Formats: sequence, C-alpha cells, structure tokens
Amino acid sequence: MTLSERLTKQINFIVEIDGVKKIMRQNVIIGEQRQENDAEHSWHLAIMACVLAEYAGSADILKVIKMVLVHDLVELYAGDTFCYDEKANIGKDAREQIAADRVFELLPAEQAVEFRNLWQEFEDMSSAEAKFAACLDRLQPLILNYYTRGHTWQKPEATSEKVLKRNQVAKNNFPEIWEYACHIIGDSIARGFLKEEISA
Amino acid sequence: MTLSERLTKQINFIVEIDGVKKIMRQNVIIGEQRQENDAEHSWHLAIMACVLAEYAGSADILKVIKMVLVHDLVELYAGDTFCYDEKANIGKDAREQIAADRVFELLPAEQAVEFRNLWQEFEDMSSAEAKFAACLDRLQPLILNYYTRGHTWQKPEATSEKVLKRNQVAKNNFPEIWEYACHIIGDSIARGFLKEEISA
Repeated sequence: MTLSERLTKQINFIVEIDGVKKIMRQNVIIGEQRQENDAEHSWHLAIMACVLAEYAGSADILKVIKMVLVHDLVELYAGDTFCYDEKANIGKDAREQIAADRVFELLPAEQAVEFRNLWQEFEDMSSAEAKFAACLDRLQPLILNYYTRGHTWQKPEATSEKVLKRNQVAKNNFPEIWEYACHIIGDSIARGFLKEEISA
Repeated sequence: MTLSERLTKQINFIVEIDGVKKIMRQNVIIGEQRQENDAEHSWHLAIMACVLAEYAGSADILKVIKMVLVHDLVELYAGDTFCYDEKANIGKDAREQIAADRVFELLPAEQAVEFRNLWQEFEDMSSAEAKFAACLDRLQPLILNYYTRGHTWQKPEATSEKVLKRNQVAKNNFPEIWEYACHIIGDSIARGFLKEEISA
C-alpha cells in the first residue's frame, strides 16, 4: 500500500513535534514536583484561550489557539530561553528563525507557510490574536509561579519590575487580565514570593 | 482590590486542571524515556486537529479542538483507564460522570454547561466533531506505539483485533486516516510490535 505523500509528511511532522514534551521550561507545575514542559504549557494556554475568550476583544479564538499550540515548536532545536536572562537572550531570534525553517518545512508547502506565519505573527505581536496569545503566554507562568510560592522568581534575574514589564501586553490591551496580573504580582510581593524593584 | 467573581472562578478552573499534567497514560513518549501525561496527549491531539483538518469532513475544527483539549479532564479525579483492560473499564462511566460534575462546576455556569456538553458529546461520539476527535484520540497512541516498538501493545490485553476495533471510528468516517492506521497496524504485526489475533 502506498500512502499519500501529503499525509506522510503531516504524520512525520506530528512525530517530530513529540519532542516538545522533552523541552523543559523554567517554571514548575503546581505541587512543585518537577519543571513543566513545552507541550503541557501549550495545552494550558490553548484551554485558557477557550475559557478566557470573552476578554480577547476582536481576536479570532481559533487563530489564537493555533498560535499557542505552535508557538514553542522552535524550541525543539533552539531550546528554552529564560525570559529574564539577558545574556541567554542574545542571538535567540536568529536561533529560532533557523529552528522555525527546520520544523515547519516538514509540513506540506502551504501548511508550512501557514504555521510559520502564525509563529512569526506571535513573535512580532503584530495582530489582535498575537497580542492575546502573548498575554496568555505571560499570564500562565505568572499563575504557576504564584501557586508555587514564586518558584522561578527566586532566581536573581527576576524582579517585580521585570515581571510587570513582561505582562505589559495585558496592560495595553486586556484590562481585566491586567487587573488580575497586578493583583497576584502585588500579593506575591507582599508574601515574599517576588522581589520588589523600582527603577530610579 | 476586588477581583471579578467570574474571572476568579475561571482562574480557579485553570489552576485546578494543572493537575492533568500528573495523570499518566499507558503509552510512552517517543524515545521511551517515560509515560506520556494527559496534558501532553491533549496538546498533541489539538495540533493534530489543525494539521489533519482537511480529512475531517464536515466537522467544525474549533469545536474539535475544544473537545480534545477538555476530553481527559475527568481523569483528574477518575484516573486513566487502560482501554484494553475490560475489568478496569467496569464502572468507568459512572466514575467519569461524577468527575465531570466536579471539574466543570468550577467554571461560571454557562461555561460549565458548554464544556460538560462538549465532553459528553465526545464520550457519546454523537456528532461529526466528536467522531473526528475520537479518531484522533485513537490515532495518536497508535503513532506513539508504532514509534516505540509497540510499547503498550506488549501488555497481554492488546491484540491486533482490539487495536483495529478501537480505530473503527476512522474506518467508518475518515478513509484516509483509516488507510494510514491499517498501514501501521499491518507493519507493526510484521515487525512483531503487535500480536495478531483473529476471531474464530
């Protein structure tokens, strides 16, 4: 039996991205037993997109979901880069562009373009969907850190100013989410989960 | 600052379902280092729904994605039940109904109804979306088993007849997917990953 070349490519992509389950993030899951991986994080974002859709303004939720499902695939080859580590972030864009070429090229041509564009749009935060996807991508580790007594925030690079700045996309676009983020950032400072730092 | 009661409920649900990352399935991830968990499995199904949408017939892909994202939430309290273990499957429905009440009730009322109905529809395979979601839910472990030399199929309960039967939803509704499933089941038997068993 000869299988369709198109379906074979699609299955090869599905097989390759299984590797995302081995890419570990900085934060831990609630209960703190172990670090979270990219597949779990992406699932959590996708379900958050469904549950919090009413706060997304004009964003198309199907597109947001597709974006969050693929947003970390480049880490298959580029690895996870800690957002508050300035040194580690040098060269991140170039590494991820090469990784994006590699992973999305596994798909049939027009799907490769669709998914690569979705990833690029997410990276650029250049649409309503990308902004909401980015907002969720910042909110989810905020929640996990809050429920794990600031696990990732114990690292020297993390300060309240940086965490607030990272959630700026909520401040500028999604007031209800921003209000919640401020609430837990404030409470995290009060409880000693997060170092307060204010610029001079 | 008083947070909206509605958003608080939604966040509590998002926090509670983090536990799905600890519910281990029977199959292992490719590379065989460890078992897969429900969150990773659900992420994989959601991205498969996007990539394989062209084979879904009339099914609405956003609804399929929502379904696969929530289809295993009941396992938070009911645990994972091995599909080929007949004994373990006794009482599964009742256990999962109680679990469904418990997890979806965390949400605001109309969302609780929406998500519980999606889950029930998936369980009943009572719509085009539920059939495609179920098809993916059977296909994904098939692929992982094929790429891990039949890991789960080494258990005595698993035979080619049962695996074919479990993928019946593809046979009856999604011919391209069924063709692929038959291809890897046949190859798995040939390679000794799966025991062949034909009813008398």
